[in-house]
Amino acid sequence: MNSQCPVLSIFALGGVYEIGKNMYGIQYADDIVLIDCGSKFPDESLLGIDLIIPDITYLLDNSDKVRGLIVTHGHEDHIGGIPYLLRQLQMPIYGTRLTLGLIDVKLKEHGLIQSTHRIEIDSKSQITLGTISVSFFRTNHSIPDCLGVVFDTPEGTVVQTGDFKFDLTPVNQQSPDIHRMAEIGQKGVLALLSESTNAERPGFTPSEKHVGEHLIEAFNKAKQKVIVSTFASNVYRLQQVIDAAEITNRKLTLLGRSMINVVNIAAQQGYLHIPEGMLVETEVANQLAPEQVAVLCTGSQGEPYAALSRLSTSNLRQLKVLPGDTVILSATPIPGNERNVARIVDNLFILGARVIYGSGSVTGLHVSGHGSQEELKLMLTLMKPKYFIPIHGEYRMLFQHRMLAESVGVEHRHIHIINNGDVVDIQDGTARVERKIPAGSTLVDGLGIGVGSVLLRDRKHLSEDGILVVVVTRSKIDGKILSGPDLISRGFNYATNSDGLLEEAALAATAALHKLQEEHVNQWNRLKQGMKESIGQFLYAKTKRRPMILPIIMDV
Amino acid sequence: MNSQCPVLSIFALGGVYEIGKNMYGIQYADDIVLIDCGSKFPDESLLGIDLIIPDITYLLDNSDKVRGLIVTHGHEDHIGGIPYLLRQLQMPIYGTRLTLGLIDVKLKEHGLIQSTHRIEIDSKSQITLGTISVSFFRTNHSIPDCLGVVFDTPEGTVVQTGDFKFDLTPVNQQSPDIHRMAEIGQKGVLALLSESTNAERPGFTPSEKHVGEHLIEAFNKAKQKVIVSTFASNVYRLQQVIDAAEITNRKLTLLGRSMINVVNIAAQQGYLHIPEGMLVETEVANQLAPEQVAVLCTGSQGEPYAALSRLSTSNLRQLKVLPGDTVILSATPIPGNERNVARIVDNLFILGARVIYGSGSVTGLHVSGHGSQEELKLMLTLMKPKYFIPIHGEYRMLFQHRMLAESVGVEHRHIHIINNGDVVDIQDGTARVERKIPAGSTLVDGLGIGVGSVLLRDRKHLSEDGILVVVVTRSKIDGKILSGPDLISRGFNYATNSDGLLEEAALAATAALHKLQEEHVNQWNRLKQGMKESIGQFLYAKTKRRPMILPIIMDV
Repeated sequence: MNSQCPVLSIFALGGVYEIGKNMYGIQYADDIVLIDCGSKFPDESLLGIDLIIPDITYLLDNSDKVRGLIVTHGHEDHIGGIPYLLRQLQMPIYGTRLTLGLIDVKLKEHGLIQSTHRIEIDSKSQITLGTISVSFFRTNHSIPDCLGVVFDTPEGTVVQTGDFKFDLTPVNQQSPDIHRMAEIGQKGVLALLSESTNAERPGFTPSEKHVGEHLIEAFNKAKQKVIVSTFASNVYRLQQVIDAAEITNRKLTLLGRSMINVVNIAAQQGYLHIPEGMLVETEVANQLAPEQVAVLCTGSQGEPYAALSRLSTSNLRQLKVLPGDTVILSATPIPGNERNVARIVDNLFILGARVIYGSGSVTGLHVSGHGSQEELKLMLTLMKPKYFIPIHGEYRMLFQHRMLAESVGVEHRHIHIINNGDVVDIQDGTARVERKIPAGSTLVDGLGIGVGSVLLRDRKHLSEDGILVVVVTRSKIDGKILSGPDLISRGFNYATNSDGLLEEAALAATAALHKLQEEHVNQWNRLKQGMKESIGQFLYAKTKRRPMILPIIMDV
Repeated sequence: MNSQCPVLSIFALGGVYEIGKNMYGIQYADDIVLIDCGSKFPDESLLGIDLIIPDITYLLDNSDKVRGLIVTHGHEDHIGGIPYLLRQLQMPIYGTRLTLGLIDVKLKEHGLIQSTHRIEIDSKSQITLGTISVSFFRTNHSIPDCLGVVFDTPEGTVVQTGDFKFDLTPVNQQSPDIHRMAEIGQKGVLALLSESTNAERPGFTPSEKHVGEHLIEAFNKAKQKVIVSTFASNVYRLQQVIDAAEITNRKLTLLGRSMINVVNIAAQQGYLHIPEGMLVETEVANQLAPEQVAVLCTGSQGEPYAALSRLSTSNLRQLKVLPGDTVILSATPIPGNERNVARIVDNLFILGARVIYGSGSVTGLHVSGHGSQEELKLMLTLMKPKYFIPIHGEYRMLFQHRMLAESVGVEHRHIHIINNGDVVDIQDGTARVERKIPAGSTLVDGLGIGVGSVLLRDRKHLSEDGILVVVVTRSKIDGKILSGPDLISRGFNYATNSDGLLEEAALAATAALHKLQEEHVNQWNRLKQGMKESIGQFLYAKTKRRPMILPIIMDV
């Protein structure tokens, strides 16, 4: 590689080898353009963590080069990290109207709306960011106003698809711009970054319109109120629920903060068409005959505090599920959420509801927003890139996407599966993956950004075995024990069950202390260690458990 | 109900409204016969809990009436609770040879083998337990030697199916005994208890033989070693892996303690036929050419410490997965395990393995051991019970099973979906569900049985926000503060991140103490409460977190 000449670099700060926290970067010479800044939810091993966002060390180290952030669409895994990014690094943000509307909600919550330069774009926009020209193409996904992004650089053209499917009968009449994609491909694409969510799924994802027909059928069959739970951001789905309610003469009421937010923004901006007088407050809906009521609510992923979960346990003040009501889960559980969703379905059945749940391919009441294998192959065929970088997926999905790319003629050696932080450097038409930049997960815990591994290890230990605090007071003068060891426990099972266990443990600690004192050992650390070991060994022998032991010595 | 005459009572102590910890009871007059005593694994909300077993309060209160425990088959959800039951209540245990073999492993671990009366039965056995005569019929499931159970009582006949499918081409030639079932049905069944695991699944579950053909195909295609992960207890599957290895001239090695245990027991007892010389130690397998090696391992559910998981991260000393090896997941993830299994698949792909994973209906490499809707209808049709009690399933499965029973002619009012603890009392041919007996979950934590809700709440609190210990020493004489408040934290994020936060919190506590002392408040409880509140309020304002605060006052 010629170190004198500029290089085109492509990297991910999040979104590969994982689902969530998408963030990609294109750099040419001293210009860095970013694509998306998402978040993801922690799994159960990350105790007490609220959110995971990309590590932006590389951007902080190169803050003078960052020209802007382009946001492909308004889903959390593409926008959830934006406020945390902006708290550390200011930059202009480009997005379509709906995308910016959803970002603005977050910026307001974080008090960043005034300080952030937001630029509205559409699929016809053209932007110049230093040496990089940026243009767009329209795609379909489960939220309106999605963009694919084209980066023209002196080294060649890079295309990032955003999230997409090819919905040829879209609900909003906005077809995917296949002609524009063909034109981009015809001009020549040096590198394509394409999303891999459904790379394991054969065939072609059904059209969103497919759901509309089944919704109307379900609404027609329902003898009482109909409650539909879906992702609030799936504006097309919301529209089809509104349409089904209109056809079956139902008023509509909303449950869940994000549902109310999205409906407000989408209706204001003209993405959602609600017949005059259809939307009513929940108190009003409660006064209507049940066959005149439809409900849209959050919680389709089984989130414990969302509307659907609270409905299923009759814990929502505003509305109750009554025997004979119909509940439609218009969503598929994301891996990890199956158990929570199943529990909700059970509870709804127990309340006497007719519950329509399960795979969308069976019920017809959900379709994916992501293209399946044939659509991924169509995108690859349209773009006919020299280099291909599968993005937006766990490793097996990236791997399957590579197989798809090979099947349509991309050369094996031109396909790079990269991890977050790997950099694809292209110079004179030749790509190399030899460098790494810092990348990883930044954990958000309350108001704090950044949580270390010791803390998580401690939390895990505390959560499984609890804690035992051992306090001893000694005389400052001669080191004599004045009181204690006193033992206090929390979360340790045997403290309450077993007679005299802690008393015996205290005796073990006392014996250890005396022994150390006889040996004239007087350092806090060694005394603490002695107590910890003696109590730990005693308790493990008795209970096969190892609570965290926290020895405290107070010299007075 | 005539209180003078004996009543036939049917109840569940576990297994309904849930998957796992099956335990059912049949009582006539003063005779109680139990069916199965299973365990289940806790979900992530039960921090630090090892196992969940049935609450047996009712049996302890009626210990003089308990005549014995009949075990339908050797799966954990049917035998896992047995040692804990026997630690509290002795009774004879009836099971087939393999079932007893698997129970014996547990009894040895708990030191109960000497004290327990175990009686081997087969499908032809007849037992008399007080007023109840017990006989059996052969069924198919994913473990050999499964029984359905027939209870003849003076009030009528009760049938409990155990777990079953109708595998008409079974691997072991042991067809389900349909003629015997027809005969039982012909004589008249007062009440049927039938399992509901696959009540949501349409059609007929494919035969286990189906898997064998696909295994041979996959073994034939494999150019290097083949690693198959499946449930150790699925002896038929193990046999088919052995057969595929034999056909493709491979030696077989085993990984995982339960795999080695089951293969030993099943081979000893003649359930498993292993060609002479096929089974080799892993060190020997490592010396062979890769195309001569097959591996059977545990961990198909993604269990973090099982063999497959450790193989996927190259953390198993004995054997490594090399690029080009084939790994077959011959199992479907149980809900809740999807994420762990997906992580393992990813890691195996990263190692360069060919991984065959995903739904058994696509790969052909797994079939369920439970009958689907048509098989459940077949059982209902054969038994034509007057009363039907769907068991062994979460509520939605029991609900769907009720719909199936209605579809084959059981009257709606004769179907009782019961929860654990509900009792179906039948007298003079009429059933009533009006009584409850104690039932619920008993939590096992290390060597302790029984964990309370306060403890779990504390663990949850500790796991999310950590703990802050506050220690003050005071003079015994005048209550003057001699040292402290000293603050020590574990698992609380801000302790390390924020400069001086704990020092400030200590000042807040000191101020609170001084104020109380000026008011001449001297009781420990009030002083502790004062410190707790002042620190809690201060930290919440600063961090939006509420760590557990544990105040300790030492008077010296």
